[in-house]
Formats: sequence, C-alpha cells, structure tokens
Amino acid sequence: MKKSFLSFVFIGSTLIAASAQAQFAKPEDAIKYRKAALTVLGAHNSRLGAMAQGRIPFDAKSATENAEIVAVMAKLPWGAFIDGTDTGDTRAKAEIWKDSAKFKEYAGKLQLESEKLVLAAKSGNQDAFKTAFTTTSGTCKSCHDDFRSK
Amino acid sequence: MKKSFLSFVFIGSTLIAASAQAQFAKPEDAIKYRKAALTVLGAHNSRLGAMAQGRIPFDAKSATENAEIVAVMAKLPWGAFIDGTDTGDTRAKAEIWKDSAKFKEYAGKLQLESEKLVLAAKSGNQDAFKTAFTTTSGTCKSCHDDFRSK
Repeated sequence: MKKSFLSFVFIGSTLIAASAQAQFAKPEDAIKYRKAALTVLGAHNSRLGAMAQGRIPFDAKSATENAEIVAVMAKLPWGAFIDGTDTGDTRAKAEIWKDSAKFKEYAGKLQLESEKLVLAAKSGNQDAFKTAFTTTSGTCKSCHDDFRSK
Repeated sequence: MKKSFLSFVFIGSTLIAASAQAQFAKPEDAIKYRKAALTVLGAHNSRLGAMAQGRIPFDAKSATENAEIVAVMAKLPWGAFIDGTDTGDTRAKAEIWKDSAKFKEYAGKLQLESEKLVLAAKSGNQDAFKTAFTTTSGTCKSCHDDFRSK
C-alpha cells in the first residue's frame, strides 16, 4: 500500500506535503477519510455560496474564515485515493486511477483556486469574491462530472 | 435554530469565530458535518500517535503538519452540536446539552492543547511532543468518556 500511496503524493507548492498525509490501515478508512474531508469542505463552501448568490449578506470576515477552511480541506482528500479504494462506499469512478494525471490536475486547480478565493474574500471586493467563488466551484464541478458517479 | 446555534458559539481566542461556523439546513447535516470533522481530526491524530508511541520515527516536520491539521479541525465540530441533533446517526449523549458548560470546556481545552501540540512538534523535542500528545489525547478521551455513547 505504501507504494500506491506515494504514487499519489502530488508535487507542488499548493499541495499538502507528503509528511502530513493521513495514512490508512484499510481501504475503507481511506474512503471514509476523503469523504469526511470533502463533507467539511462542502459545508463551508455552501456558506460561501450563500454569500456569492446573495442569500445571505456578503461579509468579508466570514467569507475569509470560511474560505480559509475550504483551502485547508482542499489539500486533504487526494492522498486518500489510493489503489484498492475504487470500490466500497464510494462514488469514485475508475477513471481516477486510469487518468490520474487529469485527476491530479483538478486537485491542484482546486487548491490553487481556493487560495485565490481566500485572497478575494480578504479583499472585501464582493465582485472579486463572486468571480473567485464561481471559478472555485467550477473546479469542483469539473472533477465531479468526470470522476464521480451520479 | 439560529438561537440554539448562537448559544453554542464559544467565546475565546482559541475558538473559531462564529462567522466561520458552518450552518445547517437539517439536523442530520449538522451531525454529518461534526462527525466528518472528527474523522479527519482522528486520522491525523493517529499519525501523531504512531510517532508518539514509536511505531513510526518521530519527524518534526511531519508531526507539525499533522498537528496543524488537528488544530484546525479541533475548532470545527462544536458549533454543529445544535439543538435537535441528539438523536439520529450520532453517539452524542444528552449530557452534551444538559451540561453544556462542561462540554464547552472540553472543546476549548482540546483546541488549546492542540495548539500547544503544534508548538511542541515544531520544537523538534521528542519528549515535549510526546507529553503534548498525551495531554491532547487525554482531552479527547475525557470528552468521549463523558459525552459519547459506547
């Protein structure tokens, strides 16, 4: 399992260091972990979406804090897509392992865009925030479209 | 729901600002969220435990990075223990709402100790790290003993 885990460690300044990756005794632990990280990410992204779409007032402080959590969470799930975790309680498509370069590209893009989202939120410029939110969420959607079962 | 949510926002520098708290449309969303945050926390805490107990070599960089994730996650679950989330897919005991002062105290202690754990890991002093890990994990255990069903 170690080899397949290491093969999934991404190189790049926006990506979490290998040393911080959780490691897993069983495939189901990895699945549970990555889903958990994405659940937390999604909850905070929803708060940002409510602001971007005007359902709640835009507040730069709240947006920044939520975006910071999104940016941290965006680093976590990818190292848990280890070999042997394409079945079980998961909607992960086999394409994740077949086209891992593309999957890694999406993962990297989410991390980059979510860091930009933090900066946009911090700026207090609502239009910049909305644009960054749309781009970040677009990254989520692209990856879900290609790599997550319906 | 808003009132009960706000009643659960902790005051203190180590505690997450109210503005960053996820909010939930349904009780089950809050339960799923807090369990997810604790799952992520637990995975990284396990990596730290492996180092503290000598099952893997102590590495200050890895310990720091994992502890930083623990410290972020330690801020998240508590705002999701809103009223109406004591039943369902949860092991939360009714005592959480009956003795919320004690529960909040544990939550605050975990956050404080996990920040100390980051500092201890950063110091590179393995004994300091072990001590801090034991204290942090003790906080988890105390809360589980009192507030989580077996």
